[in-house]
Amino acid sequence: MSDEKLPLRNENFSEWYNQVVLRAELADYAPVRGCMIVRPYGWALWENIQQALDRRFKATGHVNAAFPLFIPMSFLEKEKEHVEGFSPELAVVTHGGGQELEEPLVVRPTSETIIGHMYSKWIKSYRDLPVLINQWGNVVRWEMRTRLFLRTLEFYWQEGHTAHATYEEAEQETRQMLDTYTRFAIDEAAVPVIPGRKSDTEKFAGALRSYTIEAMMGDTRALQSGTSHNLAQNFAKAFEIRYLDVNNQLQYAWTTSWGLSTRFIGAIIMTHGDDQGLVFPPRLAPIQIVLVPIYRSDEEKSAVMPFVQQVAARLSNFRIKVDDREEVTPGFKFNDWELRGVPLRLEIGPKDVQKNSVMAARRDIPGKAGKTILPVEQLDGQVGRLLDEIHQALFERARTFRDANIHDPQSYDELKEVVQHGWAFSWWCGDTACEARIKEDTRATTRCIPLEQPGGSGKCIVCGQPASEKVYIAKAY
Amino acid sequence: MSDEKLPLRNENFSEWYNQVVLRAELADYAPVRGCMIVRPYGWALWENIQQALDRRFKATGHVNAAFPLFIPMSFLEKEKEHVEGFSPELAVVTHGGGQELEEPLVVRPTSETIIGHMYSKWIKSYRDLPVLINQWGNVVRWEMRTRLFLRTLEFYWQEGHTAHATYEEAEQETRQMLDTYTRFAIDEAAVPVIPGRKSDTEKFAGALRSYTIEAMMGDTRALQSGTSHNLAQNFAKAFEIRYLDVNNQLQYAWTTSWGLSTRFIGAIIMTHGDDQGLVFPPRLAPIQIVLVPIYRSDEEKSAVMPFVQQVAARLSNFRIKVDDREEVTPGFKFNDWELRGVPLRLEIGPKDVQKNSVMAARRDIPGKAGKTILPVEQLDGQVGRLLDEIHQALFERARTFRDANIHDPQSYDELKEVVQHGWAFSWWCGDTACEARIKEDTRATTRCIPLEQPGGSGKCIVCGQPASEKVYIAKAY
Repeated sequence: MSDEKLPLRNENFSEWYNQVVLRAELADYAPVRGCMIVRPYGWALWENIQQALDRRFKATGHVNAAFPLFIPMSFLEKEKEHVEGFSPELAVVTHGGGQELEEPLVVRPTSETIIGHMYSKWIKSYRDLPVLINQWGNVVRWEMRTRLFLRTLEFYWQEGHTAHATYEEAEQETRQMLDTYTRFAIDEAAVPVIPGRKSDTEKFAGALRSYTIEAMMGDTRALQSGTSHNLAQNFAKAFEIRYLDVNNQLQYAWTTSWGLSTRFIGAIIMTHGDDQGLVFPPRLAPIQIVLVPIYRSDEEKSAVMPFVQQVAARLSNFRIKVDDREEVTPGFKFNDWELRGVPLRLEIGPKDVQKNSVMAARRDIPGKAGKTILPVEQLDGQVGRLLDEIHQALFERARTFRDANIHDPQSYDELKEVVQHGWAFSWWCGDTACEARIKEDTRATTRCIPLEQPGGSGKCIVCGQPASEKVYIAKAY
Repeated sequence: MSDEKLPLRNENFSEWYNQVVLRAELADYAPVRGCMIVRPYGWALWENIQQALDRRFKATGHVNAAFPLFIPMSFLEKEKEHVEGFSPELAVVTHGGGQELEEPLVVRPTSETIIGHMYSKWIKSYRDLPVLINQWGNVVRWEMRTRLFLRTLEFYWQEGHTAHATYEEAEQETRQMLDTYTRFAIDEAAVPVIPGRKSDTEKFAGALRSYTIEAMMGDTRALQSGTSHNLAQNFAKAFEIRYLDVNNQLQYAWTTSWGLSTRFIGAIIMTHGDDQGLVFPPRLAPIQIVLVPIYRSDEEKSAVMPFVQQVAARLSNFRIKVDDREEVTPGFKFNDWELRGVPLRLEIGPKDVQKNSVMAARRDIPGKAGKTILPVEQLDGQVGRLLDEIHQALFERARTFRDANIHDPQSYDELKEVVQHGWAFSWWCGDTACEARIKEDTRATTRCIPLEQPGGSGKCIVCGQPASEKVYIAKAY
């Protein structure tokens, strides 16, 4: 960690983001353009995200599998919209084992095609349905402008791919997984997301309907944080995924796909971070509690260190770190762990030993107001309660910030103004032309038509025609 | 599952292997030559392997991270032996985003080079050492002859990469990880492996010294099941991994790497499987216990099913499956779960309900001899004990088989004969020429110079010169 101050968020949010990712050692730039290394501290966060999601996937009957990295180019071409959407972003393997390949292989940008091909082999009868498979892995999309976690050539994600007997089941699955992402974001990451439907322009290439969870970052820009797609029979028809129904009739299956990626790490950083650095939500934080011993002499040290170890032993239910570095001061350590976003710090000095207590400092409330003395008896209960309070406080703070930056412009001119520094929530007629005009005039896009609507109807903010739904409009990452 | 019988192991081991992998739905062939799909049942086994290893890695201070899939071609060329070893096996990306790349990118066959490059940026001082990083991921090696799990173009593995201040520390790490693999293989997979050193011919391209765990498969061929390499300063020099020591002198670091892959699934299958199919070691089995309800009428069913659910509830500490399929008979289910290698089957019929007991059938002991009546009281303790017994029995059976097939030939002619149906354990002078002659004459190779040596000395089985170590020689996968 360098001693230099971080850029301030309201002066240069973008540079604040880059600096905090690098200095907290979450990630680093790879020697290949646009790729990243996820360093151990960042990967530990991703592992916690994986566990929280995987638990939810398995609880809803999903199983994991692994499909190949390489996809024959011809597979992508089988679904027309899909190939149009992805072909500008492909990395292509042309040589293997010293020979030019007969057919080039694409490094998967997503796996609908190759999984569709396998499902057509595996699915024969209605008894084989539903198929509920998820995959954790890496994918590659050849992006031009990249940012660590937010947009990288290679990224890590999970992609669920399911097949069902009916449209209704597929739609139910799509919505169930959207809800799973919503609960995960709110309950684990303290990120207040808005679940909704994508416009036709913004939906996944090849989907009938895409759902998304959208979050507001600390600079008010939107981040699409997870998506769930009802693919209808588009891929089933392209890949011949058919089954014999109860009446022995051959039917096309209905499929879905849904994904959440390392981009979500960007959402966590930009939702909760402050001018001191990261602020990690306690349920996902790689280190939930850091213990910092404080002493000024060998004598004090010999009293403090065994006590610190006792305290650590009481906290075995938590992810803790004892910072026993000798070469840096406690003040340096405070700054260091604040930068790294550890939710709770326990300061332990000679007086604490005497009083059999520790000084707890909350990462989310700076200075004295965030400090509490905790008696060592019942420490783990107290610490658990504090971490829950931090989770709740982070969520409330983010939601308050978001709601304060969502506007209800009364005219198109006002809309053009508000999307410069926040979101608009406006009636929209659903016409692609109106959406295109907003984008051209402001670079803002429709983010989602939220599931929760105010009811009633209004006039389209662009053309004034009758509109039955409201939409969020914002600049986005 | 098809009703056809599996090929017999002693008639066609190779075909038995292919059939059992496909029919048990562990894996399937991908539409790309040499690639595989790991299906949910196979991936669940891999997840259990991952957890068992990851726990051990973390307990010895290692952390996980993720390095890029793509490596600039020029990186591979920096370590001479490394590039010679791997260049025939590379998959090469030449195009990205519709453009030809200035420098082709290699899909990683292993990550020493790109990790070495990053370590040279991250490591500055002795205080930064040791670096103990592991990565779970996929790699690609363009193999010509492939087999599901055993040798596939893309495979899944973990690769640990560590950097140390001294040779001794690096050697200690290399040996520690070899020991970790050994303990894992024996204690979790019940696979009796032999830890040892690779000959210079067989070592990793770029290593000073490679260690391996070698296992004997059911057809007596050897399988290299995990490797650990002391890379000395070879990669540190190629990638300028240097640190300031306590005296402020610039020193090259000492590095190691170690890996275990989905190939290990092949080891499990071919060590324990029998003519009925898979036999999974209980501690890694995706399903440890299958419950099969038995009834002949609706009345019996209404007595049996609630009881089955009660039994299932008592076994919540285990990975269980209730097979409540209506369309197949109990007999079909028995065969099906035997094929799939579930270690323990509980048969539950009306009489069992009356007696408040279940009939437990061990997968490893066919027929009556493997059956025990277990009272439902204390069921989970009894079942835990049975699973431990199965683990131990599988290990002993495999060790007995292995030891019965290791020979001590008294002449070179006898060696040539014994390696046709087993292993030789022979004195070897260490000369590469003798090793090459064995390979040419028999297609058998030196597998490892075991850590545990008989002591004393002898005469090289090939040339008759004095020899101080014995080596295992076998045909290998």
